[in-house]
Amino acid sequence: MNVVDFSRNNASDRAQLPGYRVTLAEDQPLKLDCGVELGPFSIAYQTYGELNAEKSNAILVAHALTGDQFVADAHPITGKPGWWETMVGPGKVLDTERYFIICCNVLGGCMGSTGPMEIDPATTQPYGVHFPVITISDMVRAQILVLDRLGIEQLFCVIGGSMGGMQALEFAARFPDRVFCAVPIASAARHSAQNIAFHEVGRQAIVADPDWCQGDYLIQGKNPTRGLAVARMAAHITYLSETALHRKFGRRLQERAALSFGFDADFQVESYLRHQGSTFVERFDANSYLYITRAMDYFDLAAEHDGVLAGAFVDTKVRFCVISFTSDWLFPTPESREVVRALSAVAANVSFVEIETDKGHDAFLLDEPELFQTLTGFLNGAAEHHGLEV
Amino acid sequence: MNVVDFSRNNASDRAQLPGYRVTLAEDQPLKLDCGVELGPFSIAYQTYGELNAEKSNAILVAHALTGDQFVADAHPITGKPGWWETMVGPGKVLDTERYFIICCNVLGGCMGSTGPMEIDPATTQPYGVHFPVITISDMVRAQILVLDRLGIEQLFCVIGGSMGGMQALEFAARFPDRVFCAVPIASAARHSAQNIAFHEVGRQAIVADPDWCQGDYLIQGKNPTRGLAVARMAAHITYLSETALHRKFGRRLQERAALSFGFDADFQVESYLRHQGSTFVERFDANSYLYITRAMDYFDLAAEHDGVLAGAFVDTKVRFCVISFTSDWLFPTPESREVVRALSAVAANVSFVEIETDKGHDAFLLDEPELFQTLTGFLNGAAEHHGLEV
Repeated sequence: MNVVDFSRNNASDRAQLPGYRVTLAEDQPLKLDCGVELGPFSIAYQTYGELNAEKSNAILVAHALTGDQFVADAHPITGKPGWWETMVGPGKVLDTERYFIICCNVLGGCMGSTGPMEIDPATTQPYGVHFPVITISDMVRAQILVLDRLGIEQLFCVIGGSMGGMQALEFAARFPDRVFCAVPIASAARHSAQNIAFHEVGRQAIVADPDWCQGDYLIQGKNPTRGLAVARMAAHITYLSETALHRKFGRRLQERAALSFGFDADFQVESYLRHQGSTFVERFDANSYLYITRAMDYFDLAAEHDGVLAGAFVDTKVRFCVISFTSDWLFPTPESREVVRALSAVAANVSFVEIETDKGHDAFLLDEPELFQTLTGFLNGAAEHHGLEV
Repeated sequence: MNVVDFSRNNASDRAQLPGYRVTLAEDQPLKLDCGVELGPFSIAYQTYGELNAEKSNAILVAHALTGDQFVADAHPITGKPGWWETMVGPGKVLDTERYFIICCNVLGGCMGSTGPMEIDPATTQPYGVHFPVITISDMVRAQILVLDRLGIEQLFCVIGGSMGGMQALEFAARFPDRVFCAVPIASAARHSAQNIAFHEVGRQAIVADPDWCQGDYLIQGKNPTRGLAVARMAAHITYLSETALHRKFGRRLQERAALSFGFDADFQVESYLRHQGSTFVERFDANSYLYITRAMDYFDLAAEHDGVLAGAFVDTKVRFCVISFTSDWLFPTPESREVVRALSAVAANVSFVEIETDKGHDAFLLDEPELFQTLTGFLNGAAEHHGLEV
């Protein structure tokens, strides 16, 4: 495997990543929600399985905040398994022998899609914080352009957890004719005050790092890794439940018999968090973190419909499967219930499952048998209605 | 009021703070849990009301992580009301016409008590990170020396919220003959993995700030205010409930009609958090934050008794009132129940009240009528048994 040296942290390395990369909006720019017209721009994506002749078996997987297109193969920078290998592969829930799986690095990302680390044609320098602020809707509309390019008129399914679930909801709301079923997992139709607050802490940690250089670190040959690591550490706590942290670490000490009476990582949980921070900065761009967290904060599907969430789904024919986890305190079950209530109010076809687990928000990424069973059941039923062969 | 210019951030300013400051351990140093013998050292404290002739009406208020001795008068740096003015004063729950209230700035603090910003006599420079790591027990034993100096053999009560509750538990466990009743509020007998994790994020934010200068910022004329502000922001979220954040801020915008599509504080909750960060650094020392969070992390009352919490309270005559709040996710009710179970196991006199509120951990600082009623009832009953006049 070609391991990309991300420490160079520049866009030309990113263009060498495996997978596909397509240039879009060459003739007509994409009008972003912020008003800026962006184009041409690139979207990097990965696919698994084969598109059938009818082009009816495509599933778009939408990734979360720090995810990317490497769903089911080794990550080209870290070498670690794809982030959803439990879910995607031959014979798995998203069966690559049956479905054609697409996952795009989101607009604003840092794994080959156009984002703040890419070169701004107007200045021939990296965009940095001159990149326009993007929204979940912008991300989805960029993915629609990819589907256009692939000739896919209608997805069989759009699925994702966390921010991926926001994209699934946005996709189904805005392009109901272009998807047969949608699966938002551990997600919400808007970002809560507490979640905005946690994101703001992360952003402040990044901009407090002098190596952020007012966003121009790429030009100045710096990288605000300390600030980004702190942002990741704070966020990481929110991905786990207190029970999971207690079970995994409790108050156990890290490779020592007694307290050190110092500021080393005495406790395993400290050591674990530091590791999460330091490995994250190897693969992620700090400005992308600012932009993508902002997109999540801005997400409020009801706001686009006079504050009435049901307005987003009037007359929808999309089948929904909404999934939440009991111990997820970042996107707690009531947020999913609100989506379900809105869908029910417009008589949409919706299943809702709250899965009992103590693994917290991250449960959507983990080996969670009830999640697999729920999805398999839902997808099999939908595939039958969609006329897909078993 | 004399406003101290904390921006100079040095120990001689801190010695000018109003209230009392006593030099202790002059003849015999205090042996800290880490093994270091500390002495002489100073403890700054404030008192309210008058000690009766029998010296039987003293209540020790133990402050939380970022609290101080200015319980019920204006803070000398910020000019804001004392942190427990709702609770302490004439005719209030901790009635200064009836009780003699003492509150000490904890050992390791930055409001006049000896801590990392004070001058190390050995080097004539501020201690910085050469200050010994202190524990909750060290804090309590320093306060015992203050009580000795005041000639108070037995407190009527020791009371505190959060880290103050840890001190109340430690005090009652270690010095059962020196206190008649103890009230730990929104607290725990040990710090959880999740809480250690949040503290570690705060510490990493501080040490990531280049102005921290490996802990020597006072010597180098710097101050890691950016890192400390991020630490405060992250911690502040944990003090509130999601419901409280939603009610206070929701997704409301800050002095604007629409999203800015930028990184300004669009949302009120962002603006609020930034304000919390920037005002905190005016009054608090970054190294003190490292030391006091560490003391909390290290707290594990059961560990000192072969892992059996009840062992800390065998044969205790202290009356306990344990209080928790339904929406406190930092020190959730099960942590208090564990204390209550341990006390019940040794047939101690214990009341337990879980107060229904959506204000989160911070409820102990706020106008919470059920808290006031509970405490008034408990203290009146205890005072009667203690022979205090009404």
